Amino acid sequence: METRMEKDSFGPIAVPADRLWGAQTQRSLEHFHISSERMPAELVNALAEVKRAAAAVNRSLGLLPADKADAIMQAALEVLDGRHPDEFPLVVWQTGSGTQSNMNMNEVLANRASELMGGERGEARLLHPNDQVNMGQSSNDIFPTAMHVAAAQAVARNLLPALAQLRGTLAVKAREFSDIVKIGRTHLQDATPLTLGQEFSGYVAQLEYAEQMIKATLPGLLQLAAGGTAVGTGLNAHPDFAPRIAAELGSRTGLAFKSAPNKFAALAGHDALVAAHGAFKTLATALMKIANDVRWMASGPRSGLGEITIPENEPGSSIMPGKVNPTQCEALTMLCCQVFGNDVAITIGGASGNFELNVFKPMIAHNFLQSARLLGDGMRSFDEHCARGIEPNHARIGELMERSLMLVTALAPHIGYDRAAQIAKKAQHEGSTLKEAALALGYVTEQEFSEWIVPMDMTHPAPPA
Amino acid sequence: METRMEKDSFGPIAVPADRLWGAQTQRSLEHFHISSERMPAELVNALAEVKRAAAAVNRSLGLLPADKADAIMQAALEVLDGRHPDEFPLVVWQTGSGTQSNMNMNEVLANRASELMGGERGEARLLHPNDQVNMGQSSNDIFPTAMHVAAAQAVARNLLPALAQLRGTLAVKAREFSDIVKIGRTHLQDATPLTLGQEFSGYVAQLEYAEQMIKATLPGLLQLAAGGTAVGTGLNAHPDFAPRIAAELGSRTGLAFKSAPNKFAALAGHDALVAAHGAFKTLATALMKIANDVRWMASGPRSGLGEITIPENEPGSSIMPGKVNPTQCEALTMLCCQVFGNDVAITIGGASGNFELNVFKPMIAHNFLQSARLLGDGMRSFDEHCARGIEPNHARIGELMERSLMLVTALAPHIGYDRAAQIAKKAQHEGSTLKEAALALGYVTEQEFSEWIVPMDMTHPAPPA
Amino acid sequence: METRMEKDSFGPIAVPADRLWGAQTQRSLEHFHISSERMPAELVNALAEVKRAAAAVNRSLGLLPADKADAIMQAALEVLDGRHPDEFPLVVWQTGSGTQSNMNMNEVLANRASELMGGERGEARLLHPNDQVNMGQSSNDIFPTAMHVAAAQAVARNLLPALAQLRGTLAVKAREFSDIVKIGRTHLQDATPLTLGQEFSGYVAQLEYAEQMIKATLPGLLQLAAGGTAVGTGLNAHPDFAPRIAAELGSRTGLAFKSAPNKFAALAGHDALVAAHGAFKTLATALMKIANDVRWMASGPRSGLGEITIPENEPGSSIMPGKVNPTQCEALTMLCCQVFGNDVAITIGGASGNFELNVFKPMIAHNFLQSARLLGDGMRSFDEHCARGIEPNHARIGELMERSLMLVTALAPHIGYDRAAQIAKKAQHEGSTLKEAALALGYVTEQEFSEWIVPMDMTHPAPPA
Amino acid sequence: METRMEKDSFGPIAVPADRLWGAQTQRSLEHFHISSERMPAELVNALAEVKRAAAAVNRSLGLLPADKADAIMQAALEVLDGRHPDEFPLVVWQTGSGTQSNMNMNEVLANRASELMGGERGEARLLHPNDQVNMGQSSNDIFPTAMHVAAAQAVARNLLPALAQLRGTLAVKAREFSDIVKIGRTHLQDATPLTLGQEFSGYVAQLEYAEQMIKATLPGLLQLAAGGTAVGTGLNAHPDFAPRIAAELGSRTGLAFKSAPNKFAALAGHDALVAAHGAFKTLATALMKIANDVRWMASGPRSGLGEITIPENEPGSSIMPGKVNPTQCEALTMLCCQVFGNDVAITIGGASGNFELNVFKPMIAHNFLQSARLLGDGMRSFDEHCARGIEPNHARIGELMERSLMLVTALAPHIGYDRAAQIAKKAQHEGSTLKEAALALGYVTEQEFSEWIVPMDMTHPAPPA
Repeated sequence: METRMEKDSFGPIAVPADRLWGAQTQRSLEHFHISSERMPAELVNALAEVKRAAAAVNRSLGLLPADKADAIMQAALEVLDGRHPDEFPLVVWQTGSGTQSNMNMNEVLANRASELMGGERGEARLLHPNDQVNMGQSSNDIFPTAMHVAAAQAVARNLLPALAQLRGTLAVKAREFSDIVKIGRTHLQDATPLTLGQEFSGYVAQLEYAEQMIKATLPGLLQLAAGGTAVGTGLNAHPDFAPRIAAELGSRTGLAFKSAPNKFAALAGHDALVAAHGAFKTLATALMKIANDVRWMASGPRSGLGEITIPENEPGSSIMPGKVNPTQCEALTMLCCQVFGNDVAITIGGASGNFELNVFKPMIAHNFLQSARLLGDGMRSFDEHCARGIEPNHARIGELMERSLMLVTALAPHIGYDRAAQIAKKAQHEGSTLKEAALALGYVTEQEFSEWIVPMDMTHPAPPA
Repeated sequence: METRMEKDSFGPIAVPADRLWGAQTQRSLEHFHISSERMPAELVNALAEVKRAAAAVNRSLGLLPADKADAIMQAALEVLDGRHPDEFPLVVWQTGSGTQSNMNMNEVLANRASELMGGERGEARLLHPNDQVNMGQSSNDIFPTAMHVAAAQAVARNLLPALAQLRGTLAVKAREFSDIVKIGRTHLQDATPLTLGQEFSGYVAQLEYAEQMIKATLPGLLQLAAGGTAVGTGLNAHPDFAPRIAAELGSRTGLAFKSAPNKFAALAGHDALVAAHGAFKTLATALMKIANDVRWMASGPRSGLGEITIPENEPGSSIMPGKVNPTQCEALTMLCCQVFGNDVAITIGGASGNFELNVFKPMIAHNFLQSARLLGDGMRSFDEHCARGIEPNHARIGELMERSLMLVTALAPHIGYDRAAQIAKKAQHEGSTLKEAALALGYVTEQEFSEWIVPMDMTHPAPPA
Repeated sequence: METRMEKDSFGPIAVPADRLWGAQTQRSLEHFHISSERMPAELVNALAEVKRAAAAVNRSLGLLPADKADAIMQAALEVLDGRHPDEFPLVVWQTGSGTQSNMNMNEVLANRASELMGGERGEARLLHPNDQVNMGQSSNDIFPTAMHVAAAQAVARNLLPALAQLRGTLAVKAREFSDIVKIGRTHLQDATPLTLGQEFSGYVAQLEYAEQMIKATLPGLLQLAAGGTAVGTGLNAHPDFAPRIAAELGSRTGLAFKSAPNKFAALAGHDALVAAHGAFKTLATALMKIANDVRWMASGPRSGLGEITIPENEPGSSIMPGKVNPTQCEALTMLCCQVFGNDVAITIGGASGNFELNVFKPMIAHNFLQSARLLGDGMRSFDEHCARGIEPNHARIGELMERSLMLVTALAPHIGYDRAAQIAKKAQHEGSTLKEAALALGYVTEQEFSEWIVPMDMTHPAPPA
Repeated sequence: METRMEKDSFGPIAVPADRLWGAQTQRSLEHFHISSERMPAELVNALAEVKRAAAAVNRSLGLLPADKADAIMQAALEVLDGRHPDEFPLVVWQTGSGTQSNMNMNEVLANRASELMGGERGEARLLHPNDQVNMGQSSNDIFPTAMHVAAAQAVARNLLPALAQLRGTLAVKAREFSDIVKIGRTHLQDATPLTLGQEFSGYVAQLEYAEQMIKATLPGLLQLAAGGTAVGTGLNAHPDFAPRIAAELGSRTGLAFKSAPNKFAALAGHDALVAAHGAFKTLATALMKIANDVRWMASGPRSGLGEITIPENEPGSSIMPGKVNPTQCEALTMLCCQVFGNDVAITIGGASGNFELNVFKPMIAHNFLQSARLLGDGMRSFDEHCARGIEPNHARIGELMERSLMLVTALAPHIGYDRAAQIAKKAQHEGSTLKEAALALGYVTEQEFSEWIVPMDMTHPAPPA
């Protein structure tokens, strides 16, 4: 492998000649052979976006010559266009400030910008990774800035649209199923009836609530640490740098980024990410419930509940021929577990800052962005390959509903809880119908029974007759 | 022990004669000898409040005779006044719907109301626990209603005021300490300076954010399941019951309760509690950071950082005479860990509903109300016995700040990152001052050094000179 | 309230005259008004046991006069006999070393021992809480010693016996149900048959494994920190103190306590508790599976799976007459969630030690002992009120098993997976029996079908015919 | 892209012509576009190992012709040799049984074995993925078998050796530092002295304990589900298949695999993985403590504790020239947080089985293997780039130790706790030395002071003089 020498304050180090990165990236590669999780692509892109914005602002403030600023911006755009996919090899498990990934970006952009300006890569480059590309910045403010940019984009572009899509499908189902009366189940036991549409309306309501809660955390994600530099004071940054870079990022991304009002909190804590992931977790609890209900209602085909059918997408067993399984539900519940686990990792990391810096940043970013991807992709997959294809099994629903003993509840306001309980127990004990038991006990007449026990009427409140 | 016979649909059962509870409470006592955690007092009170409101509404709807309704309301007020503290003996680890605690309340109120009307307690009572006290209700809607009432009260009455109190104290400190320049620390290593006031302003900002996030979950807690009855349909409830009971509870408590727009979600999920506890967790991450910073800054007295002193409240060691410890910080960080654990319990419970009911209700309520109590009481204790008494140790702060090598950062914009790094390394290597190293290397003059390195000037952004 | 003055190194403080505690307990009461969780009774007792043992050892080493040692031992026995239940009022949320609870015990024993010797309580007492009761000890080694004593007792006396009891019941059921062939379910979907006894044998195997794992953590719990004093060095302790106190505790409790070989780890970490609770968690995952299976198999009575019946212990609904619910399963699954949450709290606490001490001790003890209580009591309750009464519903089991399409799997070795799949799909599509579909497709003869598809033969491996 | 048609029980589907996978892999690819986490390489390899063993066993049982068995075995070895890296594209978030990855392997091996036998890939292949490659197997037993094989290898080959390596380094340091007396710290406050070697011996003891706990879980991981087939009964497997495949895998890997005694538990639960990961978590709590102690002791260079120095591996800041940070500690603590999070994900998944199958398998495998990798690699990195290079800073250690007020503890046995406390408080209050305060108060003579306060003597227990 051909190499060139790069240098930093620790001295010279050999770097592969065909790579744009420099000394500090190389050192990190050599010191952190830890597992295979790389710095997430969303974060690398966000970092490029931030560097582009910083160069634009530094140019506008007269701090960076136009040709250098333009070269940095062009190099950053190349990264964003996916033209340098192999230049960001660092793993998540590095320095807790993300400094090495910040320097990785600074080095790549310095070398690439130098080339774009007609210069070389390497020590003779026309720009300095720290003095120019990182101008007015520190990893300590810029890495969390990139975390927020990536997080806000993941939420706004992937997660929320997928959530809206699934919610929309379930809302359609809720309307379509509004006339199908079925048995309710509480404690897994037979209960009073409701419509299948009402059951689905509960799912829609849960998703709407999760959506609101996630949206309520967006303003926190839109606040950026940039301008705080090393410890939050803004040392070595221009006073206008902070508001301008937020504005620049806002106009590029369409998201209303703002300069964080308190930079000390923005470097030393990650409460906005902790809170937003707490809202992810709320969504995951709802999805877990929905996916579990769907797979239980679809259980069978002959020895389960069998109230709905879901799309058959693939063979379900390597040994049992003809078996079909609720695989989309399974993928969704598995990833919800992951989100619950990620929440704990993020929480502990978020609680572990000291003084002017939280040094669990790459780990927090990794988990947050993974959760956003899992939930976004997972809901989309569940929607497209399962939810849309849910169909009621009318015959089975009717059969189960009609034999329910809990229809007796409609008698309670007329004859009292105790007598109604006697009827239900007698029917259960003798294997008879409710009506048979009710008449045998003499608590109601046949006509009263028919009038008072009308399943569809039991699906809404009503004034006493 | 003298007993009387009470009866339910399972038949007769002996109950202590001096107790107001009835058959179902007694059965629960006999079937659930599990640990010692009782249904939280906050929840018992909320349940009494809900029963009072239900009786008022049922009276106003003409469903319950005035004398019976009034007796129920009076009995409920007695419970709220703390006059029946031993009548609610059930543990958290019972049926997952809380039915047994709902029946406990129904039974106590039926017996007590009967007595208030001049009747007996026991089977000859003048009111029926189910038909009258529980009128228009089911455990399935009423228990989560009580959970929300208790939760909203805990947040609004205990947690948020305590949070505001601590925030206020820290804001005062931030202002008081605004002129004290100290060394910053990132990665636990010496970094560029900031003021002690800026450091505290970060804590204030974290608490403000947590406060916002908690407040954003209040609307969810204010939505009540009441009116949904057994499965969310409202069977056996009057159509006006739901809005009226919310209004009634609102006027009694001063909290803007509303009828939940979707009752199916309100019985089968507990997303509002999951989300609110997620916000508690965000607060706990902030408190963990603050308490850790405080105890580290107060570490010593002679071999730690020693930048601040905190109140000495009690002897710290049973063997080391004269030792004083940051005990309020320790209580606070311990309870934050508990909140993190409770969050996991609530999350798993919240994700585990099936069909029309979530049956992890008492466990969720127990953890939620405990966390609110821990955080509220914990912040108040930390405020009163620690935060208010924090004092800067000026001499020590000055000494540490002045010998910091990271003041060199202020030179970087003038002489470049690489030369500045050389100065710092030389000083560290030789044990010299920055100035000595800088002059020796010839990168700055003595005058430049004095002009460029002014700690207080390093605590804010500045346009290039 | 009448008071007397007690004194510590902070000066005098008024204490209720009728209480045995002293100055430091009183200070803790005044500084920690945080929630209502008191130091667990198991821990208070273990602390008394440790103090008794320390006095015995100090006497045997000639360090403590016999009369004083005997008085301390007698006072400790009174505590263990439950004669001073109101003397230990401190909450969990105090100093993280448990120093205040250690001093609470020292003070109570010093005062009570003084009285037993004919002296007074209070400043004129005949023994000093630190110099005599705490002789050779520090909170830093004694509190974790008490944690281990309490933990080992909870595991050996409550948890393991309850586990053995439930395992035994399920093993009996597994044998009783060994001839009942039923449908298997994988992915909640119909699968090949097994016996109900086999299903229960899986539960037994899970509990056996959990038992092994819990037992594997006992040796760690049996290692005691006592003898390490303030930082683990054993300063101010006699060299024989450590082995002798372990032996003394062993002979009193019947548990093979040992002196921890490394005292630094024993004060600064709580790995044995973290590991043991990790094993609790493994048990909880098994219990969650078992309880969920039981409630699903018992679901119905008419619209669920209905393969087994479980005891009906109490009315299940305040609104639905005649409803019965799997309440023991619910209590068990709720408390498993709590154990999962407690595990996170303990883990974070366990990871948060610094230098010579972990200061999350009371929180760790609280969670550990609660989990042991929940699991022990919960298994006992589930055993007595549910598991023992499980009965198969033969008719329902037979009906579901026979119509299963997955019996087709027995044909695959004879006719290949693809053709077998075709048969199952045809039967499902047409609502026919497997036999009808198989014969219609011509892949097997009637005789082959009868020979190859024998459900009981499908419940074990077999050599090819 | 050129394609060929493959077929399964759902019909034909186009597959890229240059790929060895078949219809079911292709369907999974199309239905599960969820995030980027692929089935872990360790698991894919374990699956190939299992398939190789199954072919060998089926051949030895006379069930599979030698040529076909040999071809499968050869194809499996090619996979193990890394010759087909792009043939296993499926993500973790698929069916919860791992069926799709099992079929992926079956399909690749069937096609590749066919080619090795001179046949084609695709529908005209000479072997059937289900009937031959999957002979005697089901995903339900084979996927968990592969999970255990991969887990046991990860523990035995990566995690335990790395743990032994780090433990060894720290043991060397403990010996090297055995004469260096330093101040102890409890509650972060100055405490009585110990040697730096004693401090490190605590780390060694923690790692030894974690090692024991991890080893105690190995027997569970060595038990294999293979032979249980679809639901644990062993239907369609030869009775000798189970023991033979365990033996075959044992002889290939050198690990003592055994057939699990109860296959129902082995398919429906993952308690061995839950328990083993619980032990990982215990290790992570120890590592967190160690890494935190190291970075605090190395804090500085001028305004921290500064008792040790650690290797300087790379520049620490993009803005602060000359800054060096404890980056290996940071990587280690970040990955410990991840392990804590993974533990929760695994626990919830492990608790969520139903009836004959747990369908959270790929998620559990993903987290378990990631944790093993993180801990193994992380300890190795920390050892090589940090622990080995730890050096004491003698001057600083001496300076801090000598001014400690807690040396006063050595006086307590002579003059009592209360007088000793007075001395310490006086010295602290007046800024004097202990000796000055002690003499001024007249509680000791100069000679007594010199005799009683000898720091090195305070680092071990001693009989009273």
